Amino acid sequence: MEVQIAVAKVSKYAISESGDTLEVVERPNGGLSVVLADGQTSGRGAKAVSLLVVRKVIGLLAEGVRDGAAARAASDTLFTDKQGKVISTLNIASIDLHTGTIVLTRNNPEPVFICRGDQIDILDEESIPLGTSRNVRPLITEIAIEPDLIIVIYTDGLTHAGKRRGLPMNVAETVRSVVEDQDPSPQMLADSLLAQAVSLDENRPADDISVLVLKVIARTGDNVRRMSVRLPIEGMSRI
Amino acid sequence: MEVQIAVAKVSKYAISESGDTLEVVERPNGGLSVVLADGQTSGRGAKAVSLLVVRKVIGLLAEGVRDGAAARAASDTLFTDKQGKVISTLNIASIDLHTGTIVLTRNNPEPVFICRGDQIDILDEESIPLGTSRNVRPLITEIAIEPDLIIVIYTDGLTHAGKRRGLPMNVAETVRSVVEDQDPSPQMLADSLLAQAVSLDENRPADDISVLVLKVIARTGDNVRRMSVRLPIEGMSRI
Repeated sequence: MEVQIAVAKVSKYAISESGDTLEVVERPNGGLSVVLADGQTSGRGAKAVSLLVVRKVIGLLAEGVRDGAAARAASDTLFTDKQGKVISTLNIASIDLHTGTIVLTRNNPEPVFICRGDQIDILDEESIPLGTSRNVRPLITEIAIEPDLIIVIYTDGLTHAGKRRGLPMNVAETVRSVVEDQDPSPQMLADSLLAQAVSLDENRPADDISVLVLKVIARTGDNVRRMSVRLPIEGMSRI
Repeated sequence: MEVQIAVAKVSKYAISESGDTLEVVERPNGGLSVVLADGQTSGRGAKAVSLLVVRKVIGLLAEGVRDGAAARAASDTLFTDKQGKVISTLNIASIDLHTGTIVLTRNNPEPVFICRGDQIDILDEESIPLGTSRNVRPLITEIAIEPDLIIVIYTDGLTHAGKRRGLPMNVAETVRSVVEDQDPSPQMLADSLLAQAVSLDENRPADDISVLVLKVIARTGDNVRRMSVRLPIEGMSRI
């Protein structure tokens, strides 16, 4: 089998820096974790918050701390630092080769989609962002790694898209149509969701948007790990 | 413009865990850093060393510490921890949007290739791995971000390939032939180099191998950042 991870990420229109931070780290006992945080507001302030949360989480994961405990610790750190005045969402998706599962940790009101063939489950139990109080509980879901599993995670910019024009994005419908019509690569699914949101916002995203898709495929190929990153630097606004 | 980063990575034959660690992190002042370390020996011990080095470096980069200082600090930490008995190579490739440059930091006897059109420069000044003494100096090279620039970085597994059969890999020749014959994507160049090495080792790599390729392309596309990761889990040897 192979786990494929794809990310598509865009900043709010006219803001050079996304307030969303996403990083991928190796787990000390095998596998990878993808950590995505969306800091309150946008621009530099939000970036600092989401970076703080992601760095805290990956530092703890690196020491072997479990995902749920890392999320609680990041929440406490943020709450202590900002006295509850600044919050951040957090999603962790861990491919744990030790248990043969994907572990999803969620502190984000936005749901997570889990697709197996034509069946689409939505994890939408109420979930509170980090930093809101002293006792923030993450929601943990553990899923066996098996072929044709697709998981879709995103920040709230995706569902905000189109709202100012009264044409809100229907994420569930887009996921269903892409997954049912074709056998999408994770990059294609992430790109489709992001493209629709940006289009609903008339190419001027009203918020930072990040889409993360994981897909498990049954394959018999080489044992090579691959990663690719594409960083547009149009403008190089900081120069 | 767009900076594209590609990685291809394989473990030593019959060893489930690569001693090489590679991570990509966002820089606090804009841009990305790719950090690659190769810990001495192979398997779990080497992994622990390369993880230690990479985590130390990315923690410091996150705080705004400059690349060279982060490399020196990681070397001192490793030297203090292991009393000079365990060493690790380190390469950092930073896309610094603040200065509009790519900053290459090298503590690795293996050279770095810099291709601009048909011109290929080799950075092969003597370079010492981390942890060897109290005063390890990284080599720093700063290059303007401009279209058609290609940078190739790798761990020593690539040049060890084929040696046991007396058919050593000629990295420079492979880089030249791929770059001259075609306009390779960075993933294609990384995959070509890795595939040739694995083939020279008769599909049983004698060492962990990691190849990192950066390419700058002139493009006018969307402003979407993209990342994809492919993690083969054949065997799931840890289960």
